[in-house]
Amino acid sequence: MTKKIITISRAFGSGGRTIGKAVAERLGIPCYDKELVDKVAEESGFHADFIEEAGEYAPVTNSFLFNIAVSSNPMAMMHSMSMADQLFVCQTNVIRKLADEGPCVIIGRCADYILRDRKDCLHVFIHSDMEHRAARIVEKYGQTKQTPKKRLTDKDNKRRVYYKHYTNRNWGESQNYHLSLNSGLIGIDKCVDIIVDVAKLVEE
Amino acid sequence: MTKKIITISRAFGSGGRTIGKAVAERLGIPCYDKELVDKVAEESGFHADFIEEAGEYAPVTNSFLFNIAVSSNPMAMMHSMSMADQLFVCQTNVIRKLADEGPCVIIGRCADYILRDRKDCLHVFIHSDMEHRAARIVEKYGQTKQTPKKRLTDKDNKRRVYYKHYTNRNWGESQNYHLSLNSGLIGIDKCVDIIVDVAKLVEE
Repeated sequence: MTKKIITISRAFGSGGRTIGKAVAERLGIPCYDKELVDKVAEESGFHADFIEEAGEYAPVTNSFLFNIAVSSNPMAMMHSMSMADQLFVCQTNVIRKLADEGPCVIIGRCADYILRDRKDCLHVFIHSDMEHRAARIVEKYGQTKQTPKKRLTDKDNKRRVYYKHYTNRNWGESQNYHLSLNSGLIGIDKCVDIIVDVAKLVEE
Repeated sequence: MTKKIITISRAFGSGGRTIGKAVAERLGIPCYDKELVDKVAEESGFHADFIEEAGEYAPVTNSFLFNIAVSSNPMAMMHSMSMADQLFVCQTNVIRKLADEGPCVIIGRCADYILRDRKDCLHVFIHSDMEHRAARIVEKYGQTKQTPKKRLTDKDNKRRVYYKHYTNRNWGESQNYHLSLNSGLIGIDKCVDIIVDVAKLVEE
């Protein structure tokens, strides 16, 4: 079975986004990351900042983001579903539509779960050890009051809770992916090589 | 850091053992699988059949195996630890000794956990989908009264419980391995290629 859609799930700071973009470039197919957020924003009426945060992490408790969401889509409060649930439904629809449109790479947002019944997907999980991830987030996003380790642990926990809540699966469980790679050990470039190689192999 | 020791953890029927042996052959290093069982038997006095079963699955409830164990090592009953615990301690010692002796491939037996603090290990997890695994176990071990799916589910559950009990980790969690591969999709030969490739890469 040809694998046309590649989903890249990743731990924060593991370089999964960079890897996904490079894979898409090498295969000459679109990569949906920020573009996915924009499409969800367009479809849902939610603000992109709200989607960016609440679309992958635990249900919103941040009042700033809550206010952004409400101001951008006041009708959401009237709906019987929570805003987080509405966002998940909207993300699901957008991801399914993108997959129907043709070959692409989709970064994060439970796409591995949302597209689990399609036979034409290659599901990849990128992770890394704390040391490499800490160095990477400081390099990319700078220092904050919190230590890099605390930032990573918080993000991991939130993502684990969010993923479990919406999929009833354990985040990062090997069996849910065709390939799981430690980018700290293997290196970003080699991860890209392996994914492209496997994607081409299963196309034959 | 050079990775000299390769641990291969695997789901039953995923071809992990075959992959491990082929990797060892390609790298010209020993592969410990049955040989590990023999060494543990020698060191512990337990019967190989008992070690084979109880050294990777949930603590023994099978009276036949229990009897084999007792008859092969009656003193074990006098010991304050359960036989399963004694076996785990013995396996731990043998695995650590083998790793100290030089480059090798070690199949299963929580070697990924036992050697977690060594920096010279490449930890690999091999799994596959139910369909490929079912076909493989029927081909290798024949049919039994139970359906292949039931046999696989039982084995998975026992291994999950055993692994959790002795490591306090979740079996198959990507973050505990450098590489996790679905052998059903990727194919046995390509899995071997990827592992050898990464092992050589991190040697440089």
